[in-house]
Amino acid sequence: MELSNRIQRLKTSPTRKLNPYSEEAERKGIKIYHLNIGQPDIETPKLFFEAIEKFNGKTLGYAHSRGIKPLIQKIQEYYDKMGIHYEEDEIVITYGGSEAVLFTMLAIFDEGDEILVAEPYYANYNSFCDVLNVKRNAVRTYAENGFHLPNRDEIEKYITPKTKAYMFSNPSNPTGVVSTKQELDDIAYLSKKHNMYIISDEVYREFVYGDRKAISFGTYKDLAENVIIIDSISKRFSACGARIGCIISKNKNFMNAVFRECQMRLSAPTLEMIGAAALYDLPSEYFEIARKEYDNRRKILFEELTKMDGVIVKEPEGAFYVLAKLPVKNAENFAIWLLKDFNINGETVMFAPGEGFYATAGLGVDEVRICYSLDSEDLKSAMNILKEGLIKYRKEVER
Amino acid sequence: MELSNRIQRLKTSPTRKLNPYSEEAERKGIKIYHLNIGQPDIETPKLFFEAIEKFNGKTLGYAHSRGIKPLIQKIQEYYDKMGIHYEEDEIVITYGGSEAVLFTMLAIFDEGDEILVAEPYYANYNSFCDVLNVKRNAVRTYAENGFHLPNRDEIEKYITPKTKAYMFSNPSNPTGVVSTKQELDDIAYLSKKHNMYIISDEVYREFVYGDRKAISFGTYKDLAENVIIIDSISKRFSACGARIGCIISKNKNFMNAVFRECQMRLSAPTLEMIGAAALYDLPSEYFEIARKEYDNRRKILFEELTKMDGVIVKEPEGAFYVLAKLPVKNAENFAIWLLKDFNINGETVMFAPGEGFYATAGLGVDEVRICYSLDSEDLKSAMNILKEGLIKYRKEVER
Repeated sequence: MELSNRIQRLKTSPTRKLNPYSEEAERKGIKIYHLNIGQPDIETPKLFFEAIEKFNGKTLGYAHSRGIKPLIQKIQEYYDKMGIHYEEDEIVITYGGSEAVLFTMLAIFDEGDEILVAEPYYANYNSFCDVLNVKRNAVRTYAENGFHLPNRDEIEKYITPKTKAYMFSNPSNPTGVVSTKQELDDIAYLSKKHNMYIISDEVYREFVYGDRKAISFGTYKDLAENVIIIDSISKRFSACGARIGCIISKNKNFMNAVFRECQMRLSAPTLEMIGAAALYDLPSEYFEIARKEYDNRRKILFEELTKMDGVIVKEPEGAFYVLAKLPVKNAENFAIWLLKDFNINGETVMFAPGEGFYATAGLGVDEVRICYSLDSEDLKSAMNILKEGLIKYRKEVER
Repeated sequence: MELSNRIQRLKTSPTRKLNPYSEEAERKGIKIYHLNIGQPDIETPKLFFEAIEKFNGKTLGYAHSRGIKPLIQKIQEYYDKMGIHYEEDEIVITYGGSEAVLFTMLAIFDEGDEILVAEPYYANYNSFCDVLNVKRNAVRTYAENGFHLPNRDEIEKYITPKTKAYMFSNPSNPTGVVSTKQELDDIAYLSKKHNMYIISDEVYREFVYGDRKAISFGTYKDLAENVIIIDSISKRFSACGARIGCIISKNKNFMNAVFRECQMRLSAPTLEMIGAAALYDLPSEYFEIARKEYDNRRKILFEELTKMDGVIVKEPEGAFYVLAKLPVKNAENFAIWLLKDFNINGETVMFAPGEGFYATAGLGVDEVRICYSLDSEDLKSAMNILKEGLIKYRKEVER
């Protein structure tokens, strides 16, 4: 029995592909510090669970395909506070940011179309491109200058008549980059000039640590027809398991298309939407506390990494990731070795190999994405394991 | 800004396309009997909510991409009771039956491939085919003989070298047909002969009213490589809003592909999976009560419909739908008229126009799908409105 070509292109998620090794290690009783997946350890606010407990409907029915009104209204208010107003029909609720990306891509791309991205980028963009047969026009960025974009002319070289959209996350998963005003202006200019959509994945908006703010593409008023915002409660409120995201755009045609896609799968989960609506009532101090906590971890991580011989890394600016270049030939082999053959007092560490975050074959082979969603003490232990592991691996395995 | 061709093919859901009219009627204070959507009114068992309330994790994290083990185990036990054993890795949990269909289709079909269906069929199959550019090889069935399949030779005429799968729901949405053993044997024979998958949507399995049982394609042992079962808790446990379904198959290659798709969207909603697992603890009497209730409604509906002049309908055998041929030229216009221009004491009724359940243009124009998921009294009132509405419409509008 044959499978489709599209599915044969689809690879195992790089953040989860080493799971068989970690499961095996855990069976042997090894404790693993999971720095491979963007799963915040910060508690989900109780408001979420309380709101769900208060649900007193007798039948858990389909919700409106667009999502429940109270949640859409809360999202409107949240954006109003940022100075960006969206109408009710400019927002639809999705199954996490993932479905938001899938539905957006289905509405824009036919097979063979092209998408402009800066590599490295969020690995699941590859998955969606693979199943939809969308070619990546990948602009190379480098660990050495913190993965920021090259200048506008250089980016423009990658645009072809088939390039339908620019897609990125800001702050960035996996690099931790927060885009500068200049970078956004360049993309805005190119999108207008080449009639491209901008798919702006802004789910880490609150997690910015330096002076720079994460500027939303929603603030570019003259790009209302081009801009599509991908958003989610997963990281913002430590509620990854709720699977509630949304698509936001002022482009009526696009939103109408997305709405028909939402009808195709009937509705998003009712209870989770009720919980999500409650989360938007949290005071802004909530983000201050979370941001401080992540900032502290970020500093520890960066300090420890820069102390390690041969590791190349710039200080991450946002989200809770860093993409580090390691002094090894193949970071995936090293990551597997850490799980299979190395531990310190029964403990080891797990990373996502960098290769899966690139479009171009061969790039990122010596890189790993490290997620700092563990508390400071665990993070220090994990960094010590990485340091000792690197020394041993280079001496005994890769010598 | 251009949209994709695929999205321009995607139409508004036929079960929801009249919503603007019903919303307008409701704003005017009209009460509407919603017979347009398969939303059971039976209470969601309390076990579901209780299990969710007991969740005491602090962080609502991503679940395993395959779904949580307790739910998968319950589904295994449920099938074991039916005499069909599935291994843990032969089941993945999805966002409702809808995602199960989408992921299955992505894994099997490339653009331009073909799917064998008997029309009329579940309308969202059209949506998924439209966005994926899959052509329907539609075998015609007729209201006059209860929408059962023609003989094997007739079906075989529709199969081409590009036909990758046969897809159907049994019991059927929208026709209420329960497939006979002979029909299943015919499909089994053709699938084996032409190397086709069978996508067997069995979400209404418990809702069968006559002597005939709904036979699962899982019982066809020699078709293990061909058969894919789509399942869901939505109808079984009156929990449509939970959005929990699953894909089940013994085909390892296929399941491996589907698992990679699951990774692409990370995980299904954690709390809803916990609630769903609890539902499988309900005693089998639960289904008896629900079945009796639906059976009672079915009888009322059928009796009332057969009394109406010019309505063609056979006694529905399963699920909670009937597809009726009405004595009007255009059933969609009639359905809109019922919402806009007709009421009895401030009450009217809403149906899903039949056209959206067909592949072939022009078919189903005089049909409506009627869902009997309202209680007996409401159903009687709704049927009275239909009867009086038909008389008035034929006399004053379509004369």
